[in-house]
Amino acid sequence: MASSSYIPPPSSQPPVSQPFGLRLSPLPHHAHNHSPLTPLSFLLRAALIHPDRLALDHPERGWQLTFSQWAARSLSFAFALAGWEGKGALEGWKGKGTRVAILCPNAPMILDAYHGVLAAGGAVVPLNYRNSKQELGYVLEHSGASIILVDWELKHLVEGSNGQGRTIIVSHDSGGQDPTDPYEQFLSHGRSLWDAAQAAEDREFGPSARRDWELLTTVEETDPLSVCYTSGTTGRPKGVVSTHRGTYLAAVANALESRLEATSRYLWVLPAFHACGWTYPWSCTLSFATQHVLRRVDPATIWQALKTSGVTHYCGAPTVHISLVHHSGAERLPQPVYVAVAASAPTADLLARMESLNLVPVHVYGLTETYGPMTRRYAADSWSGLDVESRAKLMARQGHAFLTAEEARVVRVDAAKGNEPVRDSRGRLVDVRRDGTELGEIAMRGNIVMQGYYADPAATSKVVVGSTIAKGGGDGEWFLSGDLAVRHPGGEVEIRDRAKDVVISGGENVSSLAVESELATHPRVRESCVVARKHEKWGERCHAFVVLNDAEEDKGKAITGEELKKWCRGRMSGFAVPEWIDVVQELPKVSCGRAMKEGKRMRRRMFH
Amino acid sequence: MASSSYIPPPSSQPPVSQPFGLRLSPLPHHAHNHSPLTPLSFLLRAALIHPDRLALDHPERGWQLTFSQWAARSLSFAFALAGWEGKGALEGWKGKGTRVAILCPNAPMILDAYHGVLAAGGAVVPLNYRNSKQELGYVLEHSGASIILVDWELKHLVEGSNGQGRTIIVSHDSGGQDPTDPYEQFLSHGRSLWDAAQAAEDREFGPSARRDWELLTTVEETDPLSVCYTSGTTGRPKGVVSTHRGTYLAAVANALESRLEATSRYLWVLPAFHACGWTYPWSCTLSFATQHVLRRVDPATIWQALKTSGVTHYCGAPTVHISLVHHSGAERLPQPVYVAVAASAPTADLLARMESLNLVPVHVYGLTETYGPMTRRYAADSWSGLDVESRAKLMARQGHAFLTAEEARVVRVDAAKGNEPVRDSRGRLVDVRRDGTELGEIAMRGNIVMQGYYADPAATSKVVVGSTIAKGGGDGEWFLSGDLAVRHPGGEVEIRDRAKDVVISGGENVSSLAVESELATHPRVRESCVVARKHEKWGERCHAFVVLNDAEEDKGKAITGEELKKWCRGRMSGFAVPEWIDVVQELPKVSCGRAMKEGKRMRRRMFH
Repeated sequence: MASSSYIPPPSSQPPVSQPFGLRLSPLPHHAHNHSPLTPLSFLLRAALIHPDRLALDHPERGWQLTFSQWAARSLSFAFALAGWEGKGALEGWKGKGTRVAILCPNAPMILDAYHGVLAAGGAVVPLNYRNSKQELGYVLEHSGASIILVDWELKHLVEGSNGQGRTIIVSHDSGGQDPTDPYEQFLSHGRSLWDAAQAAEDREFGPSARRDWELLTTVEETDPLSVCYTSGTTGRPKGVVSTHRGTYLAAVANALESRLEATSRYLWVLPAFHACGWTYPWSCTLSFATQHVLRRVDPATIWQALKTSGVTHYCGAPTVHISLVHHSGAERLPQPVYVAVAASAPTADLLARMESLNLVPVHVYGLTETYGPMTRRYAADSWSGLDVESRAKLMARQGHAFLTAEEARVVRVDAAKGNEPVRDSRGRLVDVRRDGTELGEIAMRGNIVMQGYYADPAATSKVVVGSTIAKGGGDGEWFLSGDLAVRHPGGEVEIRDRAKDVVISGGENVSSLAVESELATHPRVRESCVVARKHEKWGERCHAFVVLNDAEEDKGKAITGEELKKWCRGRMSGFAVPEWIDVVQELPKVSCGRAMKEGKRMRRRMFH
Repeated sequence: MASSSYIPPPSSQPPVSQPFGLRLSPLPHHAHNHSPLTPLSFLLRAALIHPDRLALDHPERGWQLTFSQWAARSLSFAFALAGWEGKGALEGWKGKGTRVAILCPNAPMILDAYHGVLAAGGAVVPLNYRNSKQELGYVLEHSGASIILVDWELKHLVEGSNGQGRTIIVSHDSGGQDPTDPYEQFLSHGRSLWDAAQAAEDREFGPSARRDWELLTTVEETDPLSVCYTSGTTGRPKGVVSTHRGTYLAAVANALESRLEATSRYLWVLPAFHACGWTYPWSCTLSFATQHVLRRVDPATIWQALKTSGVTHYCGAPTVHISLVHHSGAERLPQPVYVAVAASAPTADLLARMESLNLVPVHVYGLTETYGPMTRRYAADSWSGLDVESRAKLMARQGHAFLTAEEARVVRVDAAKGNEPVRDSRGRLVDVRRDGTELGEIAMRGNIVMQGYYADPAATSKVVVGSTIAKGGGDGEWFLSGDLAVRHPGGEVEIRDRAKDVVISGGENVSSLAVESELATHPRVRESCVVARKHEKWGERCHAFVVLNDAEEDKGKAITGEELKKWCRGRMSGFAVPEWIDVVQELPKVSCGRAMKEGKRMRRRMFH
């Protein structure tokens, strides 16, 4: 139940005379036993089953919405975009498939858009507020977005881009408390259209024909749902196209794998624009869980939410957890908090600290191209007996594909040919040996792999490779992740490095990740970042940047790069030992607080 | 881990050199982002992720299988049926879509079939061992089943039906401990074909091309998975056709709604042939849960399993729970046991007793035509404060549709026209008022509604009704359940009765269910059954059969039908008060221990 005195505006009030239904209009060709898989159904269902349960809590701005209020708001949103019977549509709305861009911090508007745009039949283009105005200009141009919803704090980033028939709507994030809030006016206009549609239906068919609100959408499950632009490490941003079916199945998997329940409260730490927030906007809703929305997160505010708001789940990058466990406010929580840790698992030290605070890490891996997480490291029964070091080592593997995903393979590549995939005489991709040693590339296919890059067949065909369909059924088309990994005897995947992050030192491949992991085992090292640096003699050599942990007992005890190099020597081949080690106060951060190079690498993973 | 000294036969040993993969061959037209939704993927995935976890436990016969052993067994099963490259197929195998009948108590063979037949590309026809030989003969004939797998205890029921090119394979349920077990020989033959296929692949492409076991199936998600015959209350049995997609989504929903987890142990109380065991064979597997299989269940054996085997889940009919809570072995369990109670919820008395024993009821409703359960009564936050009577009353409603289902509606019917559905001027079905009073028929559509009745378009078109697709999107085709219900303001469905169970007394409709519920509120009444009986003056009158509870304190205190009639008079209209009330020792039971009339009604629900 909503706890405060806040009263939402009429646009966010469920129709009194009409309880919600979750009916989505079937299309003429849909059989009685086919409903398109779309995450839209989750919100309407939550509004029907738990109308008064808290869906969104936005304490910073002093407002919150129940599921029935949020559903009303989202349907008002849809009508405001698409109008009704071709009348009253927003300028810039071009019918089904219209791309609607959203530029917003973690505030309710972006979560509204993840339902309202879909309900209208459009596709969402979530913009990265860390991009430059030029980058955003390119994305808007390339995506063909004709409508932009922008938070007032970010509107300078899209100023002037309302040329070329583009409509811009600004939000004050007021939840209707500010009557001049243009976004709220947009919603009330939508609500009036919705009411008009309803009244007309009553006039024509009489209240006796009155039925649950029926969503007049013509969604097919293979329709595009979003276009998420990934900056990549080179070249222009690419627009990852997701579908309703893929989002539905990814959301179900995330709810299952992270144990979301009706009693859960999910804290938005991950920016909601990243790969549509890894489908958590829908995972929470299908679980009837509350989403705790904060525009700004830092260790202090996260700890406050964990301690005082009963948060049970959040997703974040390793550096987020590192800063949390080292924060002065850190203390053991009464409730377990499930933490989706992406792409690189906690070190033994971090794992121990997290466990002592009741933070339960769930190690997942994926890319924007896989709707966010697609694999999870599943704990084996045999782990229970192991010490934290051994568990951390085992947990570090990226593991196995999600319930609703198809298997994550590691396929053989030819280093001599720039890591081009090897094929057998049938033209099929070949799995690496399951020996934890042979390096190959992670290949994925199935329902939670992107449809492709928007309007970029060339880029798509670079990463989606076909193979001869031969006797034995062939193995179809596969998406190549660009991540180099090994496969363990248990079939789980373990990432070694991004191809482009390998340091080639004296003709030897050095995994910068491996060097970072070794550095992390030093008691004084909090985090590190290893990059390639030109070297006259060896071509390249490792250059490490290291941040020390500032545990009280260590205060003042200086430690030099030399000492750390000594530490490395015993632990890795000579050509891998960093030639240069700089002890720094902080690693230059990018999106989601990843270290710089990580940030680059992670772009093609989940951190955009 | 398997606990005993039992060693499975080679056919049930995972290939040493080959860890399992869950790859299902994509078909040439499958895009890189499409995998057919099929529950087959769950077992292969479990074998990959938790190979050594216990999948099946069969204590009666002293054997059990881990997930990797079970997967090997199921793939051996598939090869034994379909052979390899057209060679070595079982006589009677007719390629994709072959109907394979299974006549088996709750023993592993039927669970093998739910994977092996699918893996071969066939459709399962689970037979009801409570049917007569004649009934079974009709089902075999009508389904065109060309292969029959039968448990030795039941083989007399299909004797002689191996004419017309039908093949019969008998199982001794030995798990390979009996070398003469024909079913085990069938499996070993399959295993030899599988090994041969593998060897040939190695010869042709070299071990370097060796990869995870790839299932050579050509499954599309809309392919038939099973044909379950429901006896119905009138006419010939009808074959309910399910699909891979529907089964996948129903299994996911059942796992979520009943909270199955990797630590769960599911006890087979419900016969596994009923609507494919409500998809629990797959729900358990996708959750990595153990299935506890007993050929015979009675209150004593159930209590033993609950107390000594750590059972956490079972499904059953109300009378099962009634006999459990009144059993001498009843005592509070340390672990909560989630109990899917179908179709009619526990009375306040039963609910209180169950809660005191740590049995947690989950009230679900559905029919064979909806893959078993399709709706669930979701507890509202506001219930926590209520007493057990009020909670029981609220829980008694059938509630809302499952996560992966489409909404369950109640549509207006015209009693004067034999309860024919009413349509509005668009030809669309009309919802009843949400007042908890207006009686209509439950209508359902979507992914977990059957495809139709096998080879019986006439019967299908009687229950699957189309509607004009008009402006406003139309509302497509709907399946009519035949259950009469009301809709409450919260949108939840509450069944009043089966049309045919209404007692027409002096021209008034009397719900036999309503009379039974009133009788159940009497402290001495354990269960009752109300049926229509001809009456000279009133046409029909209610005849009630009542079983008293034998609580110690009540022993000896006789109670007469007259006293019970008095009890009723104050509580219902005169025309509803039973004219005849017989106090009996036990109600005549049918399948799943439903009371006789219930049994009839339930046939078209989930108890077949």
